[in-house]
Amino acid sequence: MAIKVHGYPFSGATQRVLATLAEKELEYEFVNIDLRTGQQKTEAFLKLNPFRQVPVLEDGDLTLFESRAITQYLAHTYADKGTPLITSDPKKMAILSVWTEVEGQRFDPQASKLGYEIVIKPMLGQTTDEAIVAQLEGKLAEVLDVYEARLAQSKYLGGDSFTLADLHHLPVINYLMGSKIKSLFDERPHVSAWCADILGRPSWKKVVALMKH
Amino acid sequence: MAIKVHGYPFSGATQRVLATLAEKELEYEFVNIDLRTGQQKTEAFLKLNPFRQVPVLEDGDLTLFESRAITQYLAHTYADKGTPLITSDPKKMAILSVWTEVEGQRFDPQASKLGYEIVIKPMLGQTTDEAIVAQLEGKLAEVLDVYEARLAQSKYLGGDSFTLADLHHLPVINYLMGSKIKSLFDERPHVSAWCADILGRPSWKKVVALMKH
Ligand SMILES: N[C@@H](CCC(=O)N[C@@H](CS)C(=O)NCC(=O)O)C(=O)O
Ligand SMILES: N[C@@H](CCC(=O)N[C@@H](CS)C(=O)NCC(=O)O)C(=O)O
Repeated sequence: MAIKVHGYPFSGATQRVLATLAEKELEYEFVNIDLRTGQQKTEAFLKLNPFRQVPVLEDGDLTLFESRAITQYLAHTYADKGTPLITSDPKKMAILSVWTEVEGQRFDPQASKLGYEIVIKPMLGQTTDEAIVAQLEGKLAEVLDVYEARLAQSKYLGGDSFTLADLHHLPVINYLMGSKIKSLFDERPHVSAWCADILGRPSWKKVVALMKH
Repeated sequence: MAIKVHGYPFSGATQRVLATLAEKELEYEFVNIDLRTGQQKTEAFLKLNPFRQVPVLEDGDLTLFESRAITQYLAHTYADKGTPLITSDPKKMAILSVWTEVEGQRFDPQASKLGYEIVIKPMLGQTTDEAIVAQLEGKLAEVLDVYEARLAQSKYLGGDSFTLADLHHLPVINYLMGSKIKSLFDERPHVSAWCADILGRPSWKKVVALMKH
């Protein structure tokens, strides 16, 4: 098989790539890198990603890391398969890029750290720092206020249809929806409808199913 | 004039856009948004960027924010002008995207916070937190170790020629070069040569000159 993903089913960055592969209806081989036993720290893995993290994608002789670079590569290279996820209209693509950057620069830094405090730390038997949670919650609420205004005007963040700008949010939103932070999303009607819509996509359900094995 | 930049000459994110415009040899009108007097917080500016930050680019009827979305737009739309900054080869473009993501996800979060602690805080009469500096320095050193290995094999981060993957680093590197953090770059010969190369570009010198007015 041409496409190989080195990842871990519970890794949000891995899930971002798997959701893209599902949307593009692409076949792939999954190589499990068990983060609990440090398989990302071997010399063999270092050759794939010098930052020693999952995911890594191999497509023929091409080796890529950084989940958002991988999703862009897949969307551009397999433009004719499955859901478009990007657009060929340059102005629409520019707007889509704005919201992809917003996810990476404004949403993810707050939301991932929140997920770490309230989902991961308890799983590892560590104590959540409530002061940090309150601060991050405040910052995430400001970002979601902007999303609420945007989604009142546009069905999806990047434009009229579901694109990478939405997809990139899925893993972290999915984790936060299982926590008390869910209310931050529920309180905002357009954000709440958007979350239900994107979390309900068959592609995302396939990714979630992989976590149940 | 068709292109308008709303920005502040001392803002790193603004500088990223100005460096791109200089590389692309594009004319533009600069609208100064004085961050010291809170001009980014007016209702008029909110219409341009709901996150109330600079830079914003207007090109005809298109309004964009997020510096890295703007640079990508300029590189794609004005592909035939000035320095290419991206490539039309899909595999080379995928590698370039990896290193653009590395800047945004791994370099900038550490380097910008360091710049804030050791450059901005003293300027504002605040005290640098040395514990935070030590922690960030350690993390940045790990990133620069990967850059050293990469730049030993490839003249630029994204490939053989100067691209957005390099350019996006310029503002923060320029600020850190005037601080004690300079040694982190100087200690690594390939990183050091790369910094000298990219900081020496005529486009970057034009951006630096704008700060001297
Ligand atoms: N910016 C990277 C982040 C990758 C990342 O954080 N990977 C985590 C799992 S989600 C990992 O490999 N952690 C293991 C470790 O750091 O040792 C991406 O988007 O691919
Ligand atoms: N991710 C944004 C960051 C923009 C940003 O941080 N802008 C700063 C100046 S570098 C700003 O406008 N600060 C003023 C404020 O936050 O009030 C980008 O790349 O454009």
